Amino acid sequence: MRSVLGGSIPVKPGITPGSGPGHLGLFGYDPIQYTIGRGALEATGIGFELQPGDVAARCNFCTLDADGNITDRRAGRIPTEQSTPLVRKLREVSVAGVEVFVEPVREHRFVVVFRGAGLEGNVHDTDPQATGVPPLDPRAMDNGSRATAQAAKTFIAEARKLLRDEPQANALTMRGFAGRPDLPSYEEVYGLKAAAIAVYPMYNGLARLVGMRIVGTATTLDEQCSVLEAEWANHDFFFIHFKYTDSTGEDGNFDAKVEKIEQLDAIVPRIEALDPTVLIVTGDHSTPSELKAHCWHPVPTLLFSRVCRPDVCRAFGEKDCVTGGLGQFEAKYLMPLALANAGRLGKYGA
Amino acid sequence: MRSVLGGSIPVKPGITPGSGPGHLGLFGYDPIQYTIGRGALEATGIGFELQPGDVAARCNFCTLDADGNITDRRAGRIPTEQSTPLVRKLREVSVAGVEVFVEPVREHRFVVVFRGAGLEGNVHDTDPQATGVPPLDPRAMDNGSRATAQAAKTFIAEARKLLRDEPQANALTMRGFAGRPDLPSYEEVYGLKAAAIAVYPMYNGLARLVGMRIVGTATTLDEQCSVLEAEWANHDFFFIHFKYTDSTGEDGNFDAKVEKIEQLDAIVPRIEALDPTVLIVTGDHSTPSELKAHCWHPVPTLLFSRVCRPDVCRAFGEKDCVTGGLGQFEAKYLMPLALANAGRLGKYGA
Repeated sequence: MRSVLGGSIPVKPGITPGSGPGHLGLFGYDPIQYTIGRGALEATGIGFELQPGDVAARCNFCTLDADGNITDRRAGRIPTEQSTPLVRKLREVSVAGVEVFVEPVREHRFVVVFRGAGLEGNVHDTDPQATGVPPLDPRAMDNGSRATAQAAKTFIAEARKLLRDEPQANALTMRGFAGRPDLPSYEEVYGLKAAAIAVYPMYNGLARLVGMRIVGTATTLDEQCSVLEAEWANHDFFFIHFKYTDSTGEDGNFDAKVEKIEQLDAIVPRIEALDPTVLIVTGDHSTPSELKAHCWHPVPTLLFSRVCRPDVCRAFGEKDCVTGGLGQFEAKYLMPLALANAGRLGKYGA
Repeated sequence: MRSVLGGSIPVKPGITPGSGPGHLGLFGYDPIQYTIGRGALEATGIGFELQPGDVAARCNFCTLDADGNITDRRAGRIPTEQSTPLVRKLREVSVAGVEVFVEPVREHRFVVVFRGAGLEGNVHDTDPQATGVPPLDPRAMDNGSRATAQAAKTFIAEARKLLRDEPQANALTMRGFAGRPDLPSYEEVYGLKAAAIAVYPMYNGLARLVGMRIVGTATTLDEQCSVLEAEWANHDFFFIHFKYTDSTGEDGNFDAKVEKIEQLDAIVPRIEALDPTVLIVTGDHSTPSELKAHCWHPVPTLLFSRVCRPDVCRAFGEKDCVTGGLGQFEAKYLMPLALANAGRLGKYGA
C-alpha cells in the first residue's frame, strides 16, 4: 500500500462525540476548546446560515392547560405535516428592532433566530423540564443578553396569541440559546481555500462555520464526485461528506453498511485520477451497527501522500488500523498531518 | 479473544511512578494535577485514616551528639522491635489545642499527625539532609501553617526530653508535612458506588482517598474473591489489589512472579462468573524482575466488555499489548474507557 493507516480518537479516549465536536476535531479544532451551542447547532443542522451576532434557540411546541401550566412538553409530538404550517404562521410575529427567523425542524421542534444589534446568547432555557408548571420566563444570565431575553419574551407572548386556538401546540418553550461559534477560518488557520461537498444541510453548515465554501448541489456520491471534478482547480482543500456509513450503522444494518463502504471504495479511483497531493479517508466517529449509535472507538483513518511513510498494513479496516503507522491520535492532529504531507507546514524553530 | 489489549502509561512516557501517582492515574485522576504529599502518603500507607484538616509528617529517629549536632540521620537504622516502643512512648507528648497521633512505620521511621483547627501543611522539613549540624526548626512557609509549625516545635522539644537517655534514637526529624489531598470522590466524578478489596493498608488507604468503601477483610486472593462475591450487589465498581506480582518483581524473582501471575489468572473465571459489565486487568506500573523496581514501561492492560472492539491479540503479555486495540494511552484515560464500555457516559455535544 502507498498509504499509512491509524485510529483517530474524536475527542479523548472513551468520549463519544456528537456531530458538532466530531467535525470540529476532524477539521482540526480542539473540540474541548471550541464548542458549538445547542441552538447554533440546530440552526446549522437545517442549513440556516448564522451570521456573527445572531442568537439561535431550539424551540418545542408544548401544550398548556387553562391555568397556563404545561401538560405536554412536546405537544403530543405533533407530526411534521401539522407543525410546519404552524411554524410558518409564527413568522408573522414581529419584535421591535430585531429581525426574527422561524424555521421548521421536525415534529414539535423548530428553530428561532434573532438578528439585531447587541444580542448575546446567555439566556436561560424557558423549558422547566417538568409538567404541571408554567414555562419559565427567558432570563438574561448577563447584561449583554438582556436584549435577547426581551426579544424572546416578546416573541413568546405574540406567538401564544397566534397559537391560542390550537388543541395541542398552543405554546412554545425555548432552549439552548447560542450565538454563532467564533471559529477561525480554514483560510486564517491553515491558509487553505476550502470547499465542502455534502448532501445533508448539517454537514455543509458545520463546514461553513469554519469558512469552507459550499460548492455544487449533489444528492449522490457520483454527483459529489462530479462537483469535485468541476471545482478541482478552484480550491486547495475539499471536504466530501458521505452520510450513509453512519446512518446504516445507526440503523444497526451491518450488511447495508458494508454495501455503503463498498460504494465509497468504488469512487476512490475517480478521486485518485485528480492526482490529489493528500487524500484522507476517515469519519468524525465510529457508528458500529452492533451499537446502533455514535461511539468512542477510534475511527479507521487512511492517509495517502507521496511522502507518507507506508506501514505494514495491507487492508483498511478497524483491526488493520491498530497496527498502522499513524498509531492512535486525537482527531485534532489530522489536519496538521495533512498539511505536513502537503508540504504546507514550515519548520518549528531553527 | 473477547477483550481488547493495550499499554497503560502511568504518568507520561519515561516517568516511573510511586504508588501514589500510580494509583491516582489508575483511578482516573491526572497524577500531575493531583498530588499526595509525602506525609499524607506515609500515613495512608500504614492505614491511618486522615481527616480533612489533618497534617501528617514523616519522621526519622536520629542521633545527636552532646552539642546537638546530627551524627546519624537514621539513628543507626534502629530495628523495628526497638523503635516501636519508643514511638509508643512519644504518645505521651501533649501539645495544647492539638490532638497528636504518633504511629510506627518501620526501623527509624514513624508518622506524626496533628489534628486541630486551623492547621495547614506548608511547613519546611526539619531534616537538614546533612550530619554535623543540628536539625532545623520547623518553619511555616505561609501564614496558614504557623500553628502547625508551632505544634511541631513543641512536639519535638517534648519528644527530645522523653528520648534524652536513648543511645541512638535521642531525637527526631520531620519531613514532608502534608494535609489530606483534596480529591473528588468516585461518587462525585463518576457516579459510582465503589469498593476496594486489598490486603495491604496502603492500597485500601489510597482507595479511601477517592471515596471507595473498604469492604471485607482478606489476606489471600481467594478470600478477596469471596469478599467480591459477597459484596457484588452492593456496589457498581470494585478495585481488587493483588500485591505479589509487584513484590516478586521488586525481589528480582522472575519464576516467583510468573507463579503469582498464574495465581491471578486462575481466579479470573470466578470473577467472570459474576458477569461483570466491564473487567479490567492491569497495574499501576510495571515492576520487571530484571529491574527489581518500579519502572516507566507501559503496563499490560486488558479490557473486556460486550461492546469493546476486539483486536488481533491472542495472548495477554507485554509484547501482545503493543499491537492491542487500546494502543498506548495515559492511565488516566482508563476510567473514561471503562465508563464508556459500561454505557455510563453520555455523548459529548450534539
